[in-house]
Amino acid sequence: MSNPVEEFNAYRAKMNKKMLDDNNKIVKRIFNLDTNAFLEGSLPKKTKELLGLGNSLVLRCDDCVRYHLEECYKIGFSKEEVVEAMSVSLLIGGTIVIPHLRRAYEYWEALETQV
Amino acid sequence: MSNPVEEFNAYRAKMNKKMLDDNNKIVKRIFNLDTNAFLEGSLPKKTKELLGLGNSLVLRCDDCVRYHLEECYKIGFSKEEVVEAMSVSLLIGGTIVIPHLRRAYEYWEALETQV
Amino acid sequence: MSNPVEEFNAYRAKMNKKMLDDNNKIVKRIFNLDTNAFLEGSLPKKTKELLGLGNSLVLRCDDCVRYHLEECYKIGFSKEEVVEAMSVSLLIGGTIVIPHLRRAYEYWEALETQV
Amino acid sequence: MSNPVEEFNAYRAKMNKKMLDDNNKIVKRIFNLDTNAFLEGSLPKKTKELLGLGNSLVLRCDDCVRYHLEECYKIGFSKEEVVEAMSVSLLIGGTIVIPHLRRAYEYWEALETQV
Amino acid sequence: MSNPVEEFNAYRAKMNKKMLDDNNKIVKRIFNLDTNAFLEGSLPKKTKELLGLGNSLVLRCDDCVRYHLEECYKIGFSKEEVVEAMSVSLLIGGTIVIPHLRRAYEYWEALETQV
Amino acid sequence: MSNPVEEFNAYRAKMNKKMLDDNNKIVKRIFNLDTNAFLEGSLPKKTKELLGLGNSLVLRCDDCVRYHLEECYKIGFSKEEVVEAMSVSLLIGGTIVIPHLRRAYEYWEALETQV
Repeated sequence: MSNPVEEFNAYRAKMNKKMLDDNNKIVKRIFNLDTNAFLEGSLPKKTKELLGLGNSLVLRCDDCVRYHLEECYKIGFSKEEVVEAMSVSLLIGGTIVIPHLRRAYEYWEALETQV
Repeated sequence: MSNPVEEFNAYRAKMNKKMLDDNNKIVKRIFNLDTNAFLEGSLPKKTKELLGLGNSLVLRCDDCVRYHLEECYKIGFSKEEVVEAMSVSLLIGGTIVIPHLRRAYEYWEALETQV
Repeated sequence: MSNPVEEFNAYRAKMNKKMLDDNNKIVKRIFNLDTNAFLEGSLPKKTKELLGLGNSLVLRCDDCVRYHLEECYKIGFSKEEVVEAMSVSLLIGGTIVIPHLRRAYEYWEALETQV
Repeated sequence: MSNPVEEFNAYRAKMNKKMLDDNNKIVKRIFNLDTNAFLEGSLPKKTKELLGLGNSLVLRCDDCVRYHLEECYKIGFSKEEVVEAMSVSLLIGGTIVIPHLRRAYEYWEALETQV
Repeated sequence: MSNPVEEFNAYRAKMNKKMLDDNNKIVKRIFNLDTNAFLEGSLPKKTKELLGLGNSLVLRCDDCVRYHLEECYKIGFSKEEVVEAMSVSLLIGGTIVIPHLRRAYEYWEALETQV
Repeated sequence: MSNPVEEFNAYRAKMNKKMLDDNNKIVKRIFNLDTNAFLEGSLPKKTKELLGLGNSLVLRCDDCVRYHLEECYKIGFSKEEVVEAMSVSLLIGGTIVIPHLRRAYEYWEALETQV
């Protein structure tokens, strides 16, 4: 299980299940909103995924970045587009974002190289 | 001078000029990058403006939000689209973002009502 | 209208109404959750209000602190208890919290002195 | 040594000792305050532990969350109460808190399953 | 009383007094540490003031920046040196720091022009 | 390859190369600024390295702290001086900084013990 994408998704799925099984109403509703917020709306779904990625990067949350990178990958963004979005976050968020950008690059590579 | 849009822009322009006149190389180059980062690229300029808005809102910077709201307004985003982008930032950033959202709404209104 | 408590609440109510009238589903649901999260549950309502205050203070959101201070005031916390909760946030959040603590003290005073 | 609770506490104790042995006055006094701030006072010790947990979670510090989870566990909070406190932090801090909540759940489980 | 330096210091002194009069032990000790941390030590007092300024700017706390700007001004830093320190914080903290930098410039000007 | 300093630098160099090879203009220029900002200027290079360290610590970026610790080590700062700078960041940033301080201590030790 040395595939970082599978590993991340397996852990994420396992723990999310535990949280949802707990039946805390606030937690459940926020998870539910999290699905709804990224659906097609006034803005295209693609744009919203990119917003999720950019927001996660300036807030420097590696796991959130990984999640949105995969969504961006699956929805068809090119690496160049994703890097451009991340470069906006780098400028706004400053060089403190660089270590997170390194890990984002590494994860994108993992997304591209998995079969 | 009670127009909040004019007031904000006048202060912003006055202080930016003072900063740039100072000739600190790092400050000047970052201002320069700030212009370049939002130009048409692999991503459309419109998408990049929205990224700037979303990033500013989760980082809870009122002045940055105001600046990007005006850019979004001028480039032709509808209120509904802008609100949808901001709702993503609200979900990701949490209720701590609400006071900034109030001020964003107020500023958007000012953008719409100025002649 | 120089009463800071009334002024804050009037602005808050006016802008919240505008946001909710807009019918963005994510915004509406988060406002709804915001009401639910502070109801009596496994934890007493009083404890949850204090958690709201503490969380707002370490995140350095003046308006959120003001809102939760009023809730704590109305639910019957003494100043000493509120200050003790805020001192925990000061320690965890560091001296960067001090300016927000000053404004919190000022607002608590306004809560105590309004008729 | 695959017990995550023991592992965390061993590392924490080892490094804290090194820091305190260094005799930097500010560091020592802040460690000392850290002990004092969570003692019984105007507020019950239990409430203060919960405040420490909530503050740590919105500030997204995994190790601080782990430390306060153990304190909450030892002082007798039920999982339901702890989850309710964390749900307040999730709402205030936004979905960016979710990855930290996953790790908090995992650590709570480790606390419950160690002999 | 339209001098921003006097106004800031008067408010700061008035509210700090109220906080200290309250006799909360944690608050008092942190204020005490705040004085001690910036005294001459292994590092020169001047360097420590600059660290206080830089840290405050990346954390985007306007009042903290104002306080440390005055300390830097009184201890004899030139504007060029202060701007250079702030340019490091701008790069590390990103363009989100710019609005705070504007207000820092304005305050430095107030420090220079008051009699 | 169990030397944490070598390991960190190898990963950092490998990923930085990938990012720069990508030819995104914003990313490249920010990396370039990152070199320029810490050169001798109005302020001595040593002071600027310390500012980089302090800023990184209050922003709680472990990798940034590691990078600046090594720069501080190579430029000749004593452990006592570095700890004093970090104690200022601890006070300003609060106890939430402590876990990052633990890792900073551990990394400084690794810097001292590598041949």
